[in-house]
Amino acid sequence: MNLEISKQELKDFLLNANDHDFQEMIEFIHPVDLLAIIHEYEDEAVSILNRLSDEDIAHLLDEEDDEDIYELLTQFSTKRQKEILEEMSSDEIADFVQALDEDESKDVLSKMSKEDVEEVRELLSYPPDTAGGIMATEFISIHEDKTVKKTLEYLQGVAQNAEMAYYLYVTTNEGYLRGVVSLRDLVSSPFNTLISEITNLNVHSVNVYDDQEEVAKMLDKYDYVMIPVVDEHNLIKGVITIDDILDIIKEEATEDIHRMAGLDAEEKVDGTLIESIRSRLPWLSINLITAILAASVVAMFSSTIEAVVALAAINPIIAGMGGNAGTQSLTIIVRGIALGELTGENARKVFLKELGVGLCTGVTLGIVVGIGCYFFYGNPYLGFVAGSAMLLNLIIATVSGYTVPLLLKKCNIDPALASSVFVTTATDVLGFFVFLGLATELLPYLI
Amino acid sequence: MNLEISKQELKDFLLNANDHDFQEMIEFIHPVDLLAIIHEYEDEAVSILNRLSDEDIAHLLDEEDDEDIYELLTQFSTKRQKEILEEMSSDEIADFVQALDEDESKDVLSKMSKEDVEEVRELLSYPPDTAGGIMATEFISIHEDKTVKKTLEYLQGVAQNAEMAYYLYVTTNEGYLRGVVSLRDLVSSPFNTLISEITNLNVHSVNVYDDQEEVAKMLDKYDYVMIPVVDEHNLIKGVITIDDILDIIKEEATEDIHRMAGLDAEEKVDGTLIESIRSRLPWLSINLITAILAASVVAMFSSTIEAVVALAAINPIIAGMGGNAGTQSLTIIVRGIALGELTGENARKVFLKELGVGLCTGVTLGIVVGIGCYFFYGNPYLGFVAGSAMLLNLIIATVSGYTVPLLLKKCNIDPALASSVFVTTATDVLGFFVFLGLATELLPYLI
Repeated sequence: MNLEISKQELKDFLLNANDHDFQEMIEFIHPVDLLAIIHEYEDEAVSILNRLSDEDIAHLLDEEDDEDIYELLTQFSTKRQKEILEEMSSDEIADFVQALDEDESKDVLSKMSKEDVEEVRELLSYPPDTAGGIMATEFISIHEDKTVKKTLEYLQGVAQNAEMAYYLYVTTNEGYLRGVVSLRDLVSSPFNTLISEITNLNVHSVNVYDDQEEVAKMLDKYDYVMIPVVDEHNLIKGVITIDDILDIIKEEATEDIHRMAGLDAEEKVDGTLIESIRSRLPWLSINLITAILAASVVAMFSSTIEAVVALAAINPIIAGMGGNAGTQSLTIIVRGIALGELTGENARKVFLKELGVGLCTGVTLGIVVGIGCYFFYGNPYLGFVAGSAMLLNLIIATVSGYTVPLLLKKCNIDPALASSVFVTTATDVLGFFVFLGLATELLPYLI
Repeated sequence: MNLEISKQELKDFLLNANDHDFQEMIEFIHPVDLLAIIHEYEDEAVSILNRLSDEDIAHLLDEEDDEDIYELLTQFSTKRQKEILEEMSSDEIADFVQALDEDESKDVLSKMSKEDVEEVRELLSYPPDTAGGIMATEFISIHEDKTVKKTLEYLQGVAQNAEMAYYLYVTTNEGYLRGVVSLRDLVSSPFNTLISEITNLNVHSVNVYDDQEEVAKMLDKYDYVMIPVVDEHNLIKGVITIDDILDIIKEEATEDIHRMAGLDAEEKVDGTLIESIRSRLPWLSINLITAILAASVVAMFSSTIEAVVALAAINPIIAGMGGNAGTQSLTIIVRGIALGELTGENARKVFLKELGVGLCTGVTLGIVVGIGCYFFYGNPYLGFVAGSAMLLNLIIATVSGYTVPLLLKKCNIDPALASSVFVTTATDVLGFFVFLGLATELLPYLI
């Protein structure tokens, strides 16, 4: 049943329940919910924290933002801190130690046992965006020559300490990965079944140095909830679970969205002013350069504009529409690349479609703009110039929106990062050039 | 171990292995990999498919795109089709039947047993983007008054048929949801433990009509891999697993990215020309209207431009930079809203930061542009006008980039959908107005 109780009620329970009720219930309250109470009721936080066991607090800290764990941890006595750190898994400790300054991280490590420090140091040696950097080090190894019943009896002794167990890994005595057994198969097989009979030897694994994006793609492709991480000798070092992958997928989407808008991948909505300026000023500066490039095209035609000042008003329409159409195309292409939906096979078809979109929208909007200019300024030639420039610029837009991201990808540059600069430069510079150039050619008819 | 074999080798094995080897290995080949072979080697596909069991084919079809399942299915004899459909789960059938036209879906339903048809019809009654529309109907219910050993013996009989079992649901005899037991707790508890001792009564569930986005947020928040779906009476109807949620999170990110670029949420990179035009022309038309609005501001000042034609060249720089800065701000805000990182608490701080970004980048780039114009045109007043307009327009950009998405959200309009139209209209219209207005005021000094 859903125990739908308010935060207020939960807080009151945590503060006032007698010890028996408290112990009975605490294991069924999700650490995420506990943490929310600690954050919301700061005055009562200490009293609640003091009622929790070391293990409860370790789980709570696991849900806290890496940057805030140290502050929460150091609210306890040094002795208690040691006990809590003992309960935390080494990969969680490695994650938050990474966010600390040197003094703080030394302080944390000094409160840990020698073996734990070594484990944390090994984890810290992997770059944070690799499989080794995100893996958990708790997993359960079993042996294939045991029966299901023997294995269950073994698990009754050890599994309480493993963070998440959807799969068990079959290893040799030396720890080399041989295969995988799902808990589902374990619980549904007769007690006398040998583990070797339900072991899948075709186990997918990732290397400690594999990029986290590759790991995410693999779990997504095969619908796995967990994957083992091995070193170059196939020695199992840890596991990666789906909840970490979810975060990575969201992170990657945010990075792509940011890059397409000319922001640093990591800029945070609640970051500092300095961080935001560092993230945005470089892109704005690059845009300024391209804008000056476009403006110099306009300057080239200043005698034409002096003669027909209406061109100065129509000019931004042509360039702006090209920019919008180009952004549409490049967005579809960049996202198609990111999701793996744009492949060698359909590239030609997609190109022809983009060209078609440029042609069709160009003809439609070209006619609208042409007729509009004709009526507004009473000059059919001006209408013709504006309409043709619109058509040409929308074709330039969709073709460059298709071409630029693919070229960048070929040069191993993230298409999300730089496409929009090139595409809008193309639509601005060429848009101005086509429009004002045509106007110059037909100048006698426009005056 | 990783059995790293090439597609070619896998195909040869599937075609030529003797029956014994084939049966031994086939359960360890992931359906995703099998399907890739079927797609890549079309000529040999039929021979391979004929070696597979009904169950293997059901798993294979589960990985196929919904639109292509019917075609693959109807390659088999009618008798075989019935057997395969019998092996498929009703939610998979419901998913692909939804994509069929009436004759085809009638054809599929006519090949199924009466009870299965009823189940599929019930699933089809839920809107596709609700919990009911994405749930799987296979899950395992157990009773709390049994021991772990009794439960394991029960599972040995039934679990083979349940698609994915990370959790077991404890229900009353009538099927009402009471609690949840993780397989991890089941395998790690002594045989004589009562299920009630390891049941978590604080089970989170979702309603069949809950939006899939809400479901995704809940699994993400609590790091669940599975969640039960109940009706209004708390009767358990199905389960949703994390692999479906992964797809939803990617879908939502794509929708946001598309909407921010003025594309339909559903436009596909490999869709048809007509679909693309339908997706893009409406947004281009709206942009045309706002561009005309901006152009009419320029037209208001045509006598000023006639007098100082340099303004026509500088104009797009001011407006374009405003557009870029506005896009940066609104992207940070829209993504912050989507990820739940922009809250009531930090809204004021974020606003002040955006204002600060506008001020600082505005002063920096205003000085650059001002000095640039002074040197290029030799007129300090022109430099002053351009620099001040740049500063003001960058402040307009960041302030509207902050304000517009939040206002749209208050009006229950998706901020990703419409923000950029409003923000770029603001930076274009106000940018032109500020720049050309200032120039008109100072006209005597510019000539």
